[in-house]
This record gives sequence, C-alpha cells and structure tokens, in this order.
Amino acid sequence: MATTDASLDERLEAARAAGRVIARMSPGAKDDALEAVAEAIVTRAPEILAMNAGDVEDARQSGAPAATVDRLLLDDARLGAMAAAVRAVAVLPDPVGVITGGWRVANGLEIVETRVPLGVIGVIFEGRPNVTTDAAALALKSGNAIVLRGSRVARRSNAVLGDVVASALVGAGVPVGAVTMLGPDRAEMLELIQAEGRVDLVIPRGGEELKAYLQNNARVPVIYAASGNCHVYVDADACQDDALAIVVNAKTQRPGVCNACETLLVHRDIAPDFLPRAATALLAAGVEMRVSPEARALLAGFGDDMVDATDADFATEFLDLILSVGIVGSVDEAVDHVNRFGSGHSEAIITRSLDAARAFQQGVDSAVVYVNASTRFTDGGEFGMGAEIGISTQKLHARGPIGLADLTTVKYLVTGTGQIR
Amino acid sequence: MATTDASLDERLEAARAAGRVIARMSPGAKDDALEAVAEAIVTRAPEILAMNAGDVEDARQSGAPAATVDRLLLDDARLGAMAAAVRAVAVLPDPVGVITGGWRVANGLEIVETRVPLGVIGVIFEGRPNVTTDAAALALKSGNAIVLRGSRVARRSNAVLGDVVASALVGAGVPVGAVTMLGPDRAEMLELIQAEGRVDLVIPRGGEELKAYLQNNARVPVIYAASGNCHVYVDADACQDDALAIVVNAKTQRPGVCNACETLLVHRDIAPDFLPRAATALLAAGVEMRVSPEARALLAGFGDDMVDATDADFATEFLDLILSVGIVGSVDEAVDHVNRFGSGHSEAIITRSLDAARAFQQGVDSAVVYVNASTRFTDGGEFGMGAEIGISTQKLHARGPIGLADLTTVKYLVTGTGQIR
Repeated sequence: MATTDASLDERLEAARAAGRVIARMSPGAKDDALEAVAEAIVTRAPEILAMNAGDVEDARQSGAPAATVDRLLLDDARLGAMAAAVRAVAVLPDPVGVITGGWRVANGLEIVETRVPLGVIGVIFEGRPNVTTDAAALALKSGNAIVLRGSRVARRSNAVLGDVVASALVGAGVPVGAVTMLGPDRAEMLELIQAEGRVDLVIPRGGEELKAYLQNNARVPVIYAASGNCHVYVDADACQDDALAIVVNAKTQRPGVCNACETLLVHRDIAPDFLPRAATALLAAGVEMRVSPEARALLAGFGDDMVDATDADFATEFLDLILSVGIVGSVDEAVDHVNRFGSGHSEAIITRSLDAARAFQQGVDSAVVYVNASTRFTDGGEFGMGAEIGISTQKLHARGPIGLADLTTVKYLVTGTGQIR
Repeated sequence: MATTDASLDERLEAARAAGRVIARMSPGAKDDALEAVAEAIVTRAPEILAMNAGDVEDARQSGAPAATVDRLLLDDARLGAMAAAVRAVAVLPDPVGVITGGWRVANGLEIVETRVPLGVIGVIFEGRPNVTTDAAALALKSGNAIVLRGSRVARRSNAVLGDVVASALVGAGVPVGAVTMLGPDRAEMLELIQAEGRVDLVIPRGGEELKAYLQNNARVPVIYAASGNCHVYVDADACQDDALAIVVNAKTQRPGVCNACETLLVHRDIAPDFLPRAATALLAAGVEMRVSPEARALLAGFGDDMVDATDADFATEFLDLILSVGIVGSVDEAVDHVNRFGSGHSEAIITRSLDAARAFQQGVDSAVVYVNASTRFTDGGEFGMGAEIGISTQKLHARGPIGLADLTTVKYLVTGTGQIR
C-alpha cells in the first residue's frame, strides 16, 4: 500500500504503474498472491480484530443502529469466511487473455478480440469491512490495480485490512500500488472520481445519496451498484404455497440487502384467497404492510395492523421489514407497475402459466427476472459466478452481478501482411 | 417522426413507448421495415437532394472548408450507397434474443443470459447526413428507438432524411416515435443528455469540444466515439516496403477520419535508411511533416520542408495532411510514447519480429493494435461487423467499432420451481 503521506496523485500514479505489471502477471502468480492474502487474513487476525473492536466501540457509543454495528463487526468466523472468499476468487478461471472472438476478413486480416484488464479500479463502499478483501481479490484476479475508499465508521478496520492485503501482495511479488486504501476524507474521494484518464472505473457500493454525489461529480466511468426496489408478483395462476414461501423469504430472510423484496403485487383474481394468508405469515414475521385501498378492503380482519400505501411507498427501497402491497388486474398491469416504480434490479413472477411467465420476463425491464423463485438469488455467488463486486442496475457494460469479466475490457489484435486500404 | 411542435418531453415519451414495441418486433418485420427505408431513400431522392442543395449552398456562402462541404454533399450515388447501407444492416444477424450464456446452479435454478435492446438511444452528430439513415437502421435492427440531433449546417438534409426514414417506418407498421429528429437547438440537446431514466445511451459523433460538453453536462450514459490520435511504429525489423506503403496509406488515403495516422515513430536503427524514403513519399503526397530534432538531423536534405514537432503536435489529431515524426530506441519506448500521447484508438507496428509484435500488441493500451497493416481498417464494415455507429475509444461496454450488439444490454431470465434462500 502506498504510504498515506504521498499525495493522491502520486498514489494513483503508483496504482497505474502497478496495474501495468499486474496486467501481465501469469494466472499462477496471481493465484499464489491471493493465497498469501488468505493466509495473512488469518495469521494477522488478532491485529485485525483489535482495530475492528475500536470501530465497533465507536459505532455503539455513537448510537449506530444494530444493523450497522452488525455489518461492521468482525470475528474469527467472519475472518475465516473472508479468507475463504479470497480463495474462492483464486480458483475462478482467469478472465485476462480469454479470446472472446476471432475471424478473418476478405483481405486476409486476422482479427482477434481478447479480454484485457481495465487498469485502475476504484471502489467506494460503506461499513462492511469484507469489501476490502473481496474487491482486492477480484481486482488482482482480473489484472487490475484497485483504490479503495471506505466509510469513516470502519476506518480502523479498513486501514488494517488494506495493510494486510497490500503487505501480503507485496510479499508475493505484486508491486506496491496494487492496493491503495484511501482515508475517509471527502476531498480525496472527489479527486478520485474526477481523475479522468487515471482511473478506468469507479464502483460505488452505497445508497442513493452516494449515487447522486457521483452522478453530479464523477468524471471517470462509473458503474452504479445501487438500490434494489424489487417486486414479487403473484399471478392468478400461482401455486399459493410457493408464492407464500417466496414472498416471506424475499422479504424477511435478509431485509437489509438490495435483492430483498420491497413490493408485493397480487392478481385481483387470487387476492381474496392469497392476501389474508400472506398477511398472516408476514405479520407473524414482523413485517409492516403498507397496502393499497383495494388490498386493505381484503384485509379488513387485520384492522390497524396495516397502513395506507402511497406512490412514495411503492417507489421506496425500505431495506427493512416493511412491504408495499398492491393489487393488479393482469400481468401487463404488473409489468407496468414494476417498470414505473422499480429500480431495474430483480423481480419475480409466481405462476404456472407459460404465457404469464413469458409476458412478465419479456416485459419487465430489470437485470434479473425470476419465474417461481425468490429475488434473493441475485448474487454473484448464488449465480455461480464467484464473488461479486456489486449488482449493477445500469444497462451499459455490466447488468446484474458484476463479476470478474466485467472488470475487464477488450482489445482487438489485428495481424496482417502489409494490408492497406 | 413525432411532430416538432411537441415538447421534447412528449417526444421522448413517444420514443420510449415506441421502443417497447420495437423491442418485441420479429426479425422479419424489422428487416421489412428497413427495406422500406432503403426504397424511400431512392424514391424520395429529388426531395432529399433539393433540401441538401440548400444546406450545401449555405455552407459554401458561409465560407465552410471544402472538406465540410464535401461531407455534407449528397448526390444520387451517395443516396444509393445510403440505401445499400440500410440493406446491409437488414441482412446482419438480429442481436435481440441471442442467448449469451446459460447454466443451472446447484439448487436447480436455470439461468439464461439473453440480449435485449437498450430502449432509447440518442445520437449527436455533425455534418454527415448519412448518419441519419445508418444510425436509424442500426437502432431499429437492435430493437431500439432513436433520437437524432444533427448539426445546424445539415439541418435541411437531416430534417428531410429524418422524415423519409420515419415515414417509411410508420408505413411498415413501426410505431411513430421510432425515429425522432431534433432541431439544431442547443437547449434541446442539453435536455436530451440530461434525460436520466428516459434515454438509455447517448453517442456523440464529434470532436473534443462536443465530448467535453457531454462530460460536463450529460447525466445519461454516454459512449464517446471521439478522436483518434493514431500511430504507426516502424520497428528495426520492419519490411521497409510494407512500412512505406502502410504509412502513406494510413496518413493520406483519407486524412480527415479518426483512424488515419497522425504520428510516425521510427526505430533508431532503421531511421537513417527509412526516414528519407518515407519523407520523399509523404512529401510527394502533399503531407506536412513535423519532426523531432533527431529526425530532422536525418532529413537534412529536405531542408525547409520540415517544421519542428512539439509535444503538442504529438498530442494532436490533425485530421489533415500533417504528420508528427519521432525516433525511438526500442519497442518499449514506442509503447510508452503511444500510451502517453495517444487517444487509445488504433496503432500499428510494422515488424518481422515476433517478440516486437507481441510486446507492442500487449503493451499498447488502445482499442485496436495492428501488426503489419494500416490503421485505416478500424471500421465496422472493414471488420466485417456491418455498419457501425462510431468507434469507441473508451473501455466500458464498447471498445473499437460500435456494432449492433453494443446497442443492446443483457437480461438474466431465471426459472425456478419455488426456490428460496
């Protein structure tokens, strides 16, 4: 890790120089370096946990929500999982040098399209310390240098983890500059996202506020790994047991994540049966329901346990045990609702109708569209793509889980024998 | 084409609605519509040529450079070529619905990654009227609606061509709103590039000024189809005859385009032989040479025909019969020069050495890297990808010729049987 008394300019220059070397490292050398990182996470556990305890103590004293403290907290088991995640990246296929296409044209030119690293990747993240090791592993594996910028709440944990990773890499022969950890200073973040030509991609892992800040200020390319206002639509032809299990799972299994369900839409024909069953299960799981007038009429027996849903509710990613509920008259109406209020992340239809499934999958303009499964599966690991650096809700370059290949670009290598036009 | 008295808001809404319909059109229906466009370009030629003559007359009277007038000018042959280009797009494979990946995961979920249209694409272009028909054809073929904004110099030509295309499409059953032609008004362009969530991609086809304007103002995703400061490096091991032909071709065959050569680098060992030969040929072709001091010393016999090259020259895309010339001591030095001064577009090495070819192709950070061929081949048509909407010098989403597939995104369709986490 570049020393923190160097200017950001100097550290970005070191990152770029390191990137050029990493881009040409052999797969074996990169995997050995990742093994060294995994080992260092475990051998330096006492030091990491001591620094983390300081962050946790500060967070508790400042009255941070329990969820924030839990996201921040490290223990031996979590460090073991972080080391395992680094090893899981090491065993993925190397994306660099993969030939993604190749052909000859009439004049005899041979064109080869091949994957090459981007160069320098920036990741801006909030209070989850494992992002440091996950993102550094993905960056190295894909041949890139990385610049990390965590939040103030995890500053000690991030600093020590940055040092653990960077030292282990240097020990394994990776150049200084491969991993750079910035402090929680806002001026430095601004400089990072405006370092045009020196930073090839920035990925913000945060909420709408961070997204808006980057939209207004970034001059480098950005992939937004942002909000997920995800929907489950229970079609007239649904298997109600499946629908019930999926709705409860998608809402409650981990409500604070981007692939959790925020809105339940129910077809009018099945709502009188299904909605009271769903309400019973959801209320038992501690879910607050915000319901449309039509849904409320079907839930009269639940009295004051419901509040009225507004358009603002349907547009909100609660990240909490809160669920908006609406009734629709058709698959098309469900599609329109999702496209109007959703954030393009993950949606599910529960149905036994082929027509309804196709109409929903084709009509919904989101990264992942499920038939008869929980939205919670939108995740690089669950998709079998290995660790991810976020979920993209944009359409360019990467959509859905951002995997190793998304941290590369292509280069055309063209070989001729003197061809001219 | 939406009427021009509708607000831009209304026209973007019409474009989005049209996009949703086009996204589901069958390949055959889209190809039939493109055939109708090709026919209309020819049948409405008198009207198009009359409007174009007005633009050309204005340009001449305002003292526009001959190159500008030539880019603007249409005649029957050029209209025929435009119609042929539309038909060439029609016969390309349809990118929509292509399955780009698919697999099952342990819990039985079936994941299919498929190509889907982006939605609404904006193209901002300068004085070349064929962009209207090329871009509209590529957008329709890839299932997108398009919003075009041409420059003032071609306003009559663009208006009539926009109407020709839009009317032909409507006649073929494509919804109104598929093609929208904006006027040359700057306020409307600003609105277009800030229409977040309503425009999925904007591609500016223009110079550095337009690029800077978008970097400062755009809030929608942008792919920069911008400048090409392209290099030819003549290695110590080059075949001099090939090198000579390639340098002259890359510089002079069409100097005003982005894949023309702007800088010649020559290895020190071959320069005393090669450089005078190259100078003789280039000067005969009317090229102004701006040479480094070391190159000048080898070109003493050419006297005042040379001017001194500055760093600014090496950083300039002349788009004219001007060439910067430098001497380097190794492939690595050539690579460093290209990466320092280049724009990441297209570079060529002329060599018979495998080591030199590999070092140059791996080291140069550009979209297309040639061995023993002219940089002039960086072009969708020459690459066999069909018409292109520009050449991308950025690394995200599209790099090199922007083809049909780059006008799409992916969507994951996941099918389950009730899976929950």
